[in-house]
Amino acid sequence: MNREALREVLRSLVHGVYVLGTGRGAEAHLATVSWVTQVSAEPPMVAVALHRESRVADRTTASLGFTLSPLAHGHTTLASRLGRPAAPASKLTGIALETSPSLGLPLPTESTGWLECRVAARMDAGDHVLVLGAVVDAGTRSTEATLLLRETGWRY
Amino acid sequence: MNREALREVLRSLVHGVYVLGTGRGAEAHLATVSWVTQVSAEPPMVAVALHRESRVADRTTASLGFTLSPLAHGHTTLASRLGRPAAPASKLTGIALETSPSLGLPLPTESTGWLECRVAARMDAGDHVLVLGAVVDAGTRSTEATLLLRETGWRY
Repeated sequence: MNREALREVLRSLVHGVYVLGTGRGAEAHLATVSWVTQVSAEPPMVAVALHRESRVADRTTASLGFTLSPLAHGHTTLASRLGRPAAPASKLTGIALETSPSLGLPLPTESTGWLECRVAARMDAGDHVLVLGAVVDAGTRSTEATLLLRETGWRY
Repeated sequence: MNREALREVLRSLVHGVYVLGTGRGAEAHLATVSWVTQVSAEPPMVAVALHRESRVADRTTASLGFTLSPLAHGHTTLASRLGRPAAPASKLTGIALETSPSLGLPLPTESTGWLECRVAARMDAGDHVLVLGAVVDAGTRSTEATLLLRETGWRY
């Protein structure tokens, strides 16, 4: 396999930048995620790939659900902060949060909207685990376009 | 659930526009797909959601693999044509094709590059089936940015 071509084509796949929230109360956890796609229209479902050895994968698959909040074009500060590992106690300090209405999970107020999802299935996928979420509620905050991973210059 | 909010947030999820190719020779089939994400870095893997009742879902899950070719920004004609149902015999008429090197599957020459994938797993996901592909080869054709679904004005 041509590894350089592989890298280029994988980078050309289109991904947005989102905040995933899971856990309630003292277990609340947020992380930046990007490998996300819708997978079903009716019922509405999404899939999120999480690194197999990450805390967010452990917490999400052990949880009843997760929230998914698209970040707006240009809003890279929160994504950058939540993309770095940090002690659970300090990671959310100073981040404006709300609680999702159906599942009581954390939502960052800095997003264009949110989905609340119940974990419907999971599947191992190489070095990630793919989590399927069935959407149970949704809300909008703004009509700004979603931040593209390619705009950030980051590699996930 | 607020259905209008649901529609808006689902539309704000970021998706590209790709051509999926499957089947060999007289069985060759192409279709426009958009619900795609990378799901693993090492080994490299992607996931594609295909409508459960579509011919492309039947053919892909019955096949040894598929190709995935990102379309370039502005290149909506091929995507539009391949997004419509058509008789198998006529669907590919006049479309410039190559054969993928490892698996012998169809590739449209009008793309920014391509991945060849073996079907690694499949999972039912509501009205779609999610197909996981392990990338076995890749090639590049241009450095143009990938067409975004939101640029096309289409709803998938």
